[in-house]
Amino acid sequence: MYDKKSIELHKKYKGKLEIRSVIDIKDKEILSLLYTPGVGAVSREIHSHPETAYDYTIKGRTVAVVTDGSAVLGLGNIGPLAAMPVMEGKCALFKSFGNIDAVPICLNVHTPDEIINVIKAISPGFGGINLEDIKAPECFIIEKALQDIGIPVMHDDQHGTAIVTLAALINASKVIDKDIKDLKVIISGVGAAGVAIYRLLTNNRIGIQNIIMVDSKGILSKERTDIDGYKKEIALNTNPLNIKGSMKDALEGADVFIGVSAPNILTSDMINSMNEKKIVFAMANPDPEISLENAKKLGITVFATGRSDIPNQINNVLAFPGIFRGLLDNKINKITEDMKINASLKIADMIKTPGRENIIPSVFNKDVVKEVASAFSK
Amino acid sequence: MYDKKSIELHKKYKGKLEIRSVIDIKDKEILSLLYTPGVGAVSREIHSHPETAYDYTIKGRTVAVVTDGSAVLGLGNIGPLAAMPVMEGKCALFKSFGNIDAVPICLNVHTPDEIINVIKAISPGFGGINLEDIKAPECFIIEKALQDIGIPVMHDDQHGTAIVTLAALINASKVIDKDIKDLKVIISGVGAAGVAIYRLLTNNRIGIQNIIMVDSKGILSKERTDIDGYKKEIALNTNPLNIKGSMKDALEGADVFIGVSAPNILTSDMINSMNEKKIVFAMANPDPEISLENAKKLGITVFATGRSDIPNQINNVLAFPGIFRGLLDNKINKITEDMKINASLKIADMIKTPGRENIIPSVFNKDVVKEVASAFSK
Repeated sequence: MYDKKSIELHKKYKGKLEIRSVIDIKDKEILSLLYTPGVGAVSREIHSHPETAYDYTIKGRTVAVVTDGSAVLGLGNIGPLAAMPVMEGKCALFKSFGNIDAVPICLNVHTPDEIINVIKAISPGFGGINLEDIKAPECFIIEKALQDIGIPVMHDDQHGTAIVTLAALINASKVIDKDIKDLKVIISGVGAAGVAIYRLLTNNRIGIQNIIMVDSKGILSKERTDIDGYKKEIALNTNPLNIKGSMKDALEGADVFIGVSAPNILTSDMINSMNEKKIVFAMANPDPEISLENAKKLGITVFATGRSDIPNQINNVLAFPGIFRGLLDNKINKITEDMKINASLKIADMIKTPGRENIIPSVFNKDVVKEVASAFSK
Repeated sequence: MYDKKSIELHKKYKGKLEIRSVIDIKDKEILSLLYTPGVGAVSREIHSHPETAYDYTIKGRTVAVVTDGSAVLGLGNIGPLAAMPVMEGKCALFKSFGNIDAVPICLNVHTPDEIINVIKAISPGFGGINLEDIKAPECFIIEKALQDIGIPVMHDDQHGTAIVTLAALINASKVIDKDIKDLKVIISGVGAAGVAIYRLLTNNRIGIQNIIMVDSKGILSKERTDIDGYKKEIALNTNPLNIKGSMKDALEGADVFIGVSAPNILTSDMINSMNEKKIVFAMANPDPEISLENAKKLGITVFATGRSDIPNQINNVLAFPGIFRGLLDNKINKITEDMKINASLKIADMIKTPGRENIIPSVFNKDVVKEVASAFSK
């Protein structure tokens, strides 16, 4: 329904961003201050005192939104050029929700080493780097390498999504009246988002024990011989009862389904095999893991998606503007698990009386960015 | 005089650029069109038809202003961070004068190969690349390599400066009533700007024969053993009478001095040894090759600088907005010498009756960008 209108809107404006001078260059006097000869003094000052770049340039309020186009929305590896509309959209949200100036940088290189080198090279002018829609496991390698050299970086598909999902789960668990620690949680999708959600949910401060992760081939169990690397590690650290099989087998007796995977993979039978009070976060974008029509019929206690047209929108726009607001304002180079959990708690706390259709604030709630930012301080 | 005010202005605004959404994200409907789910259709369209990126994204109106900070104004190699105020200023001018959205990209890599690779990697999102304040000979290598792979690129310190200088010289030669072909021209400075000016002035269509180039060590002559590469080549192709020695020796009997070098290197004796009707373009920035006070006393027929506070400002802001306007509108990948000369002729033509203090249009003349852009067509 949005496709045609969206294409028309993009065509009308020829893209969504505008980069302009904050000062009207109306005469020679202003020109001489903004540019030569006056600007030379500013450059000399920064050369002598590099930290003043945060005072005299846009560095302190500017983020690069970087992708290689390898995992764009649910569209997959469509490349850097086709990723542009998504990155521009992200930049528009950065400005609208966080008053952060963000620049889309779409890379036509794809190995971690190449991407790391480009980001290192362009980093002087930016206060932070938002990695976006880069596929796993490359995204993990890139983020860690940049963190290790002190560049403020965040892969939003991991951490933004995980923070908002945890916030929603905290409130949803209150709605079904069960301690979050005791939930049996199934995560569908073992990409960037799924892995980050798993890490946050199993953090000591949250303490969920019974998590099963499912990829397109089935449950991650110790017997799976077709997985290695980070998936193998996850198989060893989740699924305590070592259940084998498919999504159907995983969901039996589960309290929570968290989907960051593919459209329409959930059947009515699967949902019915979950516990009576059940939480379903079907976040595949734009089409969720279960059709809205089916979800309504099945009496799911708390149902949420990534969509803006039904209640309970789990969307990382609740997180990333505040995260970078906090990183920039407090000059933080490295996001910790503790900061992320604090952010989730702040978001969850904004809902005073959680209800079935009220587990998470609206993305248009102006207080969210402040609350989230306050979690990212030293 | 501008230093303190400029620093204050930069501090007040925390830099000069703003990146914002052209559409107000006021409700969920707009959010769904600008971003998910609607934006997916736009990405799919670009994936199928890459050329539509010019219709649906900012690519067609966006330029990256790229530097490594190795030759910033007259400040030299001050690095990428200290170059930011200059690059931001340039971006502000791009928007104000050419309605082009420009992004400062300051690189902390410095070899041609590294810079080429980064620019190639970030190129999908940009309609053009403006190289800025990169030292010679690296700038020549980088520009050529990018041209050869079809990326629309322009090194403004070379071509912008050369185009405007030639335009000014065309009109100045009318003022001293001498055919441009017959001028004896001394160029002080054999960096990016000096070399580009030399190339344009000696193009067949302009045809100046008697050019002498002078670097900090003296006249480029066939006997110089301390030069190689492009300087050696220039020594072989200029200075037809093979004059040796210093600036003083070069200027004897010259009609034109063009300075893109260093402050206050011209003495009264040197100026007096030039022909009676003389043209002096002292463009070192911010302090010209001869003090304004001295220049006034010496009866120079046509005197011009890069400064905005006296008549005859030879500033590349007259060129670069129109150059990129033309490149973007006409999807041109490669700037030719012919296009540059056409641009010079267009600028020169805007002055109907050249006079001593009227050889070049004001940078605030709104028609300049159109005239220059019209020279960059297929």
